[in-house]
Amino acid sequence: MTDESQHTPATSDLRQAALAARAASREVAIVPREYKDQVLLGVAESVEAAAPVLMMFNTQDVARAKEAGLPEAKIARLRLTPESISQCVAGLRQIAAMDDPVGKVVEERTVPSGLNVQRVRSPLGVILMIYEARPLVTLDAFGLCFKAGNACILKGGREASQTNIAISKFIHAVLEGCGHNKDACVVLPSLEREQTRELLGMADCIDLAIPRGGAELVKFVREHAKMPTVQHAQGVCHIYVHEDADLEMALRVCVTAKTSAPATCNAAECVLVHAKVAGELVPRLCEAYREAGVQVRAEARALALTPYAEPAGDDDFGREFLDLVVALKLVEGMDDAIAHVHRYGSDHTEAILTTNPAAADWFARHVQSSCVVINASTRFNDGFQLGLGAEIGISTSRVHAYGPMGLEELTTRRWVVRGEGQTR
Amino acid sequence: MTDESQHTPATSDLRQAALAARAASREVAIVPREYKDQVLLGVAESVEAAAPVLMMFNTQDVARAKEAGLPEAKIARLRLTPESISQCVAGLRQIAAMDDPVGKVVEERTVPSGLNVQRVRSPLGVILMIYEARPLVTLDAFGLCFKAGNACILKGGREASQTNIAISKFIHAVLEGCGHNKDACVVLPSLEREQTRELLGMADCIDLAIPRGGAELVKFVREHAKMPTVQHAQGVCHIYVHEDADLEMALRVCVTAKTSAPATCNAAECVLVHAKVAGELVPRLCEAYREAGVQVRAEARALALTPYAEPAGDDDFGREFLDLVVALKLVEGMDDAIAHVHRYGSDHTEAILTTNPAAADWFARHVQSSCVVINASTRFNDGFQLGLGAEIGISTSRVHAYGPMGLEELTTRRWVVRGEGQTR
Repeated sequence: MTDESQHTPATSDLRQAALAARAASREVAIVPREYKDQVLLGVAESVEAAAPVLMMFNTQDVARAKEAGLPEAKIARLRLTPESISQCVAGLRQIAAMDDPVGKVVEERTVPSGLNVQRVRSPLGVILMIYEARPLVTLDAFGLCFKAGNACILKGGREASQTNIAISKFIHAVLEGCGHNKDACVVLPSLEREQTRELLGMADCIDLAIPRGGAELVKFVREHAKMPTVQHAQGVCHIYVHEDADLEMALRVCVTAKTSAPATCNAAECVLVHAKVAGELVPRLCEAYREAGVQVRAEARALALTPYAEPAGDDDFGREFLDLVVALKLVEGMDDAIAHVHRYGSDHTEAILTTNPAAADWFARHVQSSCVVINASTRFNDGFQLGLGAEIGISTSRVHAYGPMGLEELTTRRWVVRGEGQTR
Repeated sequence: MTDESQHTPATSDLRQAALAARAASREVAIVPREYKDQVLLGVAESVEAAAPVLMMFNTQDVARAKEAGLPEAKIARLRLTPESISQCVAGLRQIAAMDDPVGKVVEERTVPSGLNVQRVRSPLGVILMIYEARPLVTLDAFGLCFKAGNACILKGGREASQTNIAISKFIHAVLEGCGHNKDACVVLPSLEREQTRELLGMADCIDLAIPRGGAELVKFVREHAKMPTVQHAQGVCHIYVHEDADLEMALRVCVTAKTSAPATCNAAECVLVHAKVAGELVPRLCEAYREAGVQVRAEARALALTPYAEPAGDDDFGREFLDLVVALKLVEGMDDAIAHVHRYGSDHTEAILTTNPAAADWFARHVQSSCVVINASTRFNDGFQLGLGAEIGISTSRVHAYGPMGLEELTTRRWVVRGEGQTR
């Protein structure tokens, strides 16, 4: 297996793989729900049963990554645990339990010419996912793409290649065992940068490219993809505490939205406090942050209200810290807060804390981020939390999908028109 | 006005224009329906009243284009007539009468955490339209973008620059007269290629780029756009005549789908006839085509059935003739027809003629073009005909919008979440 994981496919192999995925996508698109669920449950079962085998291959990947000096944070993402595997298996079973979006008639009407016009939810075709060395993304992505009727090409980080190959063998065995084309899931464990670029040029075989990873990866995909891409930029999420907010709620929400998972994209990065309540809130908030181990970087007026903050630098606003660091600023009111978000936000998630529903609505109308949260944490912008089930990432581009991408966001709508010989 | 139309803006002006559109988009996004309709009706009225003035500027554009040797087909698209103006004015009034998509709650639920979760239809932001010398597209595009709550940047062909500037003055006068920001509609009458490329790099100011024109323009936009684009590739539309088709209907549909508007993207380019009915249909069909002035390019077996066809060349299948030319081929049945469409189609529009509803459904499931038409002409894949109202073009990319793009397709959906202090 070692040789296989180190082997870089030749260009013609890459082209063959993409063509095979395109051909398989025609088959996956029309598989009835029960057969798709059978595959998902079969993969869940075999991964569950063979978790120790998977862990063994993963141990080899981890050992090699350590030798190569991969930072500990990345090794943590690469490493499988019995818990992470069983969570992923539960996710596959959850996807199997979800409604099939494919074939749903989402609009229907009879138009003046007498035609019956339907709009039908349909697969996208072939989806290319490019991600870092997080092997369970391979299972998640396959599960969502397949249930939505798509073939997928999965290109994970090369540090996870042994684990990804092992996962792909489970998927292929179940696909073939159930009588499907195994190219419904093409796994490319190891590609040179130049080859990834080639793959991104194959717009005739691939309908959508989804990068999932750091800013550099997203930029690389955007620059080289000839097919549409869904983009996840940074999550520079703000919480605005309005003058009439419940300050106890504000303390709870502002602290947990930063501390519960500081490295996630929906964690709060900046708190804006209405000047009228700053005298009361800022000292207590900064003390609470200090107790939680959060460093506060405050602009001058906020800094004057607390000993527990440092002066904010020029680039601390509009910054995704992804760490136990938060920016803090006083604002004169709603307009000032909205202007700050328009200038520094990344269209990901913004929250307002207020007891005035009209103020909340005003904020939600003017701030057009993928998710505006009223009186709750920014961290609720998440597929599971919003009721979508599993998600494949959060889009900060308004086109196609804006916010968490679940099953429905991996489909499109097309027209089916029935007539009786109408000409035009 | 002549100087203005010849003037190419400096880069800093271009950047200013894009930033101005971005700022205006924040305002347009929240304009209530009645105020938007007031603007649309106002523009319709002033264009109607000033049609002779518009015609005068257009005459200058046409004269200059003739001097420059523009081909007659392009001059026909550039030239305004009293009829084309009043049709466009009627279109604006129709857009005003349509429901406002913005703010519509398209999903709502309460999730286990107790949050009320809404999905709200929202504008895309700033839309860049790049099109050829068809000045009325300026009015159509502004009308649709504005009603959907978007600011737009309109870059039409330079041959129409006098007419486009005149149109932009009407739009700006009405916008300002109604108290709106005139940068909701930025018109760039004349740009160098290098500047268009710069504009396509301004992903921070522009949310979506829509090319509307020939293959070269579409390719240019796809290659240089750093923001998402909606793509209209070719319309290589097929009609498949199944073995049990009503042959009288087949004659009517096949002929009109080619002849009623041969240069449009939804005109039929290729007819596939089931071998079982070819002996009866092909001779009559080719005779009908001949009477209608259509040249038939047939593969060998079809050619043998009629004196009124020429042999098809290698590249006549998968070709968008945009002219009174049609390709013809016999197929062995459904699977053969579907395989032909998968190989040669462009995902635009495919029709099947059959009296068997199960055969029709099979075709509609396997052929996943933006529109599958059963027993009617391919030419019904059109925003007006499908009941969308006006459209801004037909997308052949499955991402975001697939098929005709009307008002709804110029919007997105975002999340608005209401809580009572939930943390996570």
